[in-house]
Amino acid sequence: MASVRVDSEVTRIMIGVNESSIKGYPHASISSKSAFEWTLNKIIRSNTSGFKLLFLHVQVPDEDGFDDVDSIYASPQDFRDANRKDKINGSHLLEYFVNRCHDIGVVCEAWVKRGDAKEVICHEVKRVKPDLLVVGNRGLGPFQRVFVGTVSEFCVKHCECPVVTIKRSAEETPNDPVDD
Amino acid sequence: MASVRVDSEVTRIMIGVNESSIKGYPHASISSKSAFEWTLNKIIRSNTSGFKLLFLHVQVPDEDGFDDVDSIYASPQDFRDANRKDKINGSHLLEYFVNRCHDIGVVCEAWVKRGDAKEVICHEVKRVKPDLLVVGNRGLGPFQRVFVGTVSEFCVKHCECPVVTIKRSAEETPNDPVDD
Repeated sequence: MASVRVDSEVTRIMIGVNESSIKGYPHASISSKSAFEWTLNKIIRSNTSGFKLLFLHVQVPDEDGFDDVDSIYASPQDFRDANRKDKINGSHLLEYFVNRCHDIGVVCEAWVKRGDAKEVICHEVKRVKPDLLVVGNRGLGPFQRVFVGTVSEFCVKHCECPVVTIKRSAEETPNDPVDD
Repeated sequence: MASVRVDSEVTRIMIGVNESSIKGYPHASISSKSAFEWTLNKIIRSNTSGFKLLFLHVQVPDEDGFDDVDSIYASPQDFRDANRKDKINGSHLLEYFVNRCHDIGVVCEAWVKRGDAKEVICHEVKRVKPDLLVVGNRGLGPFQRVFVGTVSEFCVKHCECPVVTIKRSAEETPNDPVDD
């Protein structure tokens, strides 16, 4: 029996994550968690050594202003070492994902960038060259989409790598589907 | 260390495949093969028992006309048993993919439907409920897309499961990119 020709390098999957619009920082949005859980359960499965996860959080700049951030978080200790500035700039959102990966034994990296989410994600895809980008999606209808925009649609169209969009399950959708 | 909670069932990946516009039947298009190879090398990797591949070929009806086909091909023997009618209706295209899976040890099914590719694929997704749909794409620019249509864009928008589109690599693109 022949075997699958597996590239010696791991499959690198980038996951775009954002904060919950309901709970705020440091809580991840429902759709970010859905995208993460789908990747674990349907793609990585038991093959934890075959994959590397790359978590990108794009923070929309606020009026306070802060410098562009390039810190990399790869273990729980990295978060314990983080200073107050990191707590402010959204990197604490990444702790949930990095801790889960650490517990499971999946190698990961996580970082924060700021700017327009859809443009920054495509820019980071171009720079980092993942094998796959996974983004969550609230599953909004066309009417709602007009007002909230969809980062996922932009990424599917413009990012220079395969992109998969994961919708939240129906039972996880809040009363107001714009919430996440 | 915690482990990934893996659903007891395998991850079922549907791959839409079509014939080569250059070589005709039974040859698969470049983008179909790209979608298949990407799935093997980047997703399944060495975890051959964790996945099942579902190959769907949608044949555009021609003036000869033939009955709707629901035959299922799961091993090389199935093709040896196939009659002449199967050869005519496009199922011989599937032999390449089923044989590769058999050699590698990945469980698969393959079947032919006829009709409008984008609509049949979405209909079959609704019926079969795969965890992921993988479709190839020629990577055409907006000008060329207007004339050839893109099944993949329709599927991304309308299929009721996560969808990933795989472009051909640049070195595999024929002189006329509409060819496949």
